[in-house]
Amino acid sequence: MNIKPLGERVVIKKLEAKEKTESGILLPSQAKEKPQIAEVLAVGPGLLEDGKVVKMEVKIGDKVIFPNYSGTEVKIDGVELIIIEQSKLLAIVD
Amino acid sequence: MNIKPLGERVVIKKLEAKEKTESGILLPSQAKEKPQIAEVLAVGPGLLEDGKVVKMEVKIGDKVIFPNYSGTEVKIDGVELIIIEQSKLLAIVD
Amino acid sequence: MNIKPLGERVVIKKLEAKEKTESGILLPSQAKEKPQIAEVLAVGPGLLEDGKVVKMEVKIGDKVIFPNYSGTEVKIDGVELIIIEQSKLLAIVD
Amino acid sequence: MNIKPLGERVVIKKLEAKEKTESGILLPSQAKEKPQIAEVLAVGPGLLEDGKVVKMEVKIGDKVIFPNYSGTEVKIDGVELIIIEQSKLLAIVD
Amino acid sequence: MNIKPLGERVVIKKLEAKEKTESGILLPSQAKEKPQIAEVLAVGPGLLEDGKVVKMEVKIGDKVIFPNYSGTEVKIDGVELIIIEQSKLLAIVD
Amino acid sequence: MNIKPLGERVVIKKLEAKEKTESGILLPSQAKEKPQIAEVLAVGPGLLEDGKVVKMEVKIGDKVIFPNYSGTEVKIDGVELIIIEQSKLLAIVD
Amino acid sequence: MNIKPLGERVVIKKLEAKEKTESGILLPSQAKEKPQIAEVLAVGPGLLEDGKVVKMEVKIGDKVIFPNYSGTEVKIDGVELIIIEQSKLLAIVD
Repeated sequence: MNIKPLGERVVIKKLEAKEKTESGILLPSQAKEKPQIAEVLAVGPGLLEDGKVVKMEVKIGDKVIFPNYSGTEVKIDGVELIIIEQSKLLAIVD
Repeated sequence: MNIKPLGERVVIKKLEAKEKTESGILLPSQAKEKPQIAEVLAVGPGLLEDGKVVKMEVKIGDKVIFPNYSGTEVKIDGVELIIIEQSKLLAIVD
Repeated sequence: MNIKPLGERVVIKKLEAKEKTESGILLPSQAKEKPQIAEVLAVGPGLLEDGKVVKMEVKIGDKVIFPNYSGTEVKIDGVELIIIEQSKLLAIVD
Repeated sequence: MNIKPLGERVVIKKLEAKEKTESGILLPSQAKEKPQIAEVLAVGPGLLEDGKVVKMEVKIGDKVIFPNYSGTEVKIDGVELIIIEQSKLLAIVD
Repeated sequence: MNIKPLGERVVIKKLEAKEKTESGILLPSQAKEKPQIAEVLAVGPGLLEDGKVVKMEVKIGDKVIFPNYSGTEVKIDGVELIIIEQSKLLAIVD
Repeated sequence: MNIKPLGERVVIKKLEAKEKTESGILLPSQAKEKPQIAEVLAVGPGLLEDGKVVKMEVKIGDKVIFPNYSGTEVKIDGVELIIIEQSKLLAIVD
Repeated sequence: MNIKPLGERVVIKKLEAKEKTESGILLPSQAKEKPQIAEVLAVGPGLLEDGKVVKMEVKIGDKVIFPNYSGTEVKIDGVELIIIEQSKLLAIVD
């Protein structure tokens, strides 16, 4: 099953704590709004609400930092995903 | 009876839990704002409130994920439908 | 007496429950914000607050769905009417 | 004494209940926000806050419907007037 | 001492009740937000926050109606003045 | 040490009460939001958040009136300064 | 590991109190919202949410003042960093 995000949304999948440690990234657990790391699985066309088009800066496979509790969680084919606007993503890490 | 959505609105019909399972999509029930899956039945012309026109990304027959409790519910010819802005739709699935 | 709506407003008149049934439309009574069906009696020039002009998508005689409690109720020549912005209308039905 | 409204404002004067009845207009008294009818006495140049200019749709002598409690009341030469933005006027009646 | 208002601001000085009576203007005392009359002492260049420039409609010496409690009060050389955006002024009277 | 304000911000330094009196300016102490007088020490390039550039109306050495409690206080080399957007400054005095 | 901020975001690292003292900067501790000083480690491309591009005024190595509690804290390779929009930075110091 395919999932194609609309607008400037992307589909991301949270990375596990273990993966994070391996890649050297540790996100603070005491922060009120903990940012998380995820992998980009699908990228929307960049159409904005007002009819303009924004350039998509992230691509499939990118690892991104995003604020926790943002975006919308969905479970597709048993996998937990998040649909989120690109403008809410904070940074790409590699 | 026909229903023609105005502006950038679309008319959608929620898919039943059974249909969702068959298509492999399961949406989390514990989420506060549960996204749902629906089929697009009609698509507006894309006219925005400020006079601009936005490209309609979805078409009749598309299956879309949308945030629950968004849009407006109407019952036409005994069928429960939802009228919702395209910009609130999260993704197309197939 | 004539009534000419200003801006992108239209003048509409709610259809009775009976008319709705005949036309096959039944709107849910349990919804918190019940949408209603009405007939368009007059259409404004489409002038927006910021000086732009929006295309009027509805015309006199159209039957439209609109969110309840929106618009402003007036009684003219004994008839209860609603003045409402076109952008608040959800769909045309026929 | 002259009063020249600024921006896209107009100066209006409420019509008495009697005048309303003669002209066949009766506005509902049970509504929470009762619209009123008034005559336009002066019309501003249409300059908007952001420097654009909007076309003034109403002219001196027009009878207009406007939402009650909107605009600002002033008393000039013993006459109670209301200064109100054109964009808040709902319709012209004749 | 000179005072040059910035942006689209103007400097105004409230007129006394006596002056108001002579000029025939009486503003309602029972209104929740009483509009006042003042004289324009200085006019800004019209630069808006977003870099555009708005035409200044009022000039030094104009008598203007403005909503009470708007603008900022300052006392310069013993005189109480108000610095206020032109867009908040309601009308010019003469 | 140098401080270069970003965007359309300026760096200002409050003038003492004594300086105010000498220059004839007295700001009301009973006002809820007391405006203050300050000297401009540094002026930003005028870049706005949306990428546009605004003309900077104030220059180093200008004495400006600004609303109290606006801007951000910093202490640099023992001197208390305020970083504030130009659009919040009310007027230049001389 | 690399971190590339998205949009008009930058990655900054707070300077220690000691470093601040050496550079002569002391930020007030009694302020409700204490501004802080930090060094810029990475600069985004300047893409805005609406598709426009803003010029990045800060560069790697710049020392900047920013309001405390703004931006998002992340810990990468054991280092505590902050991802923040350039438009929230107040000034560059040197």
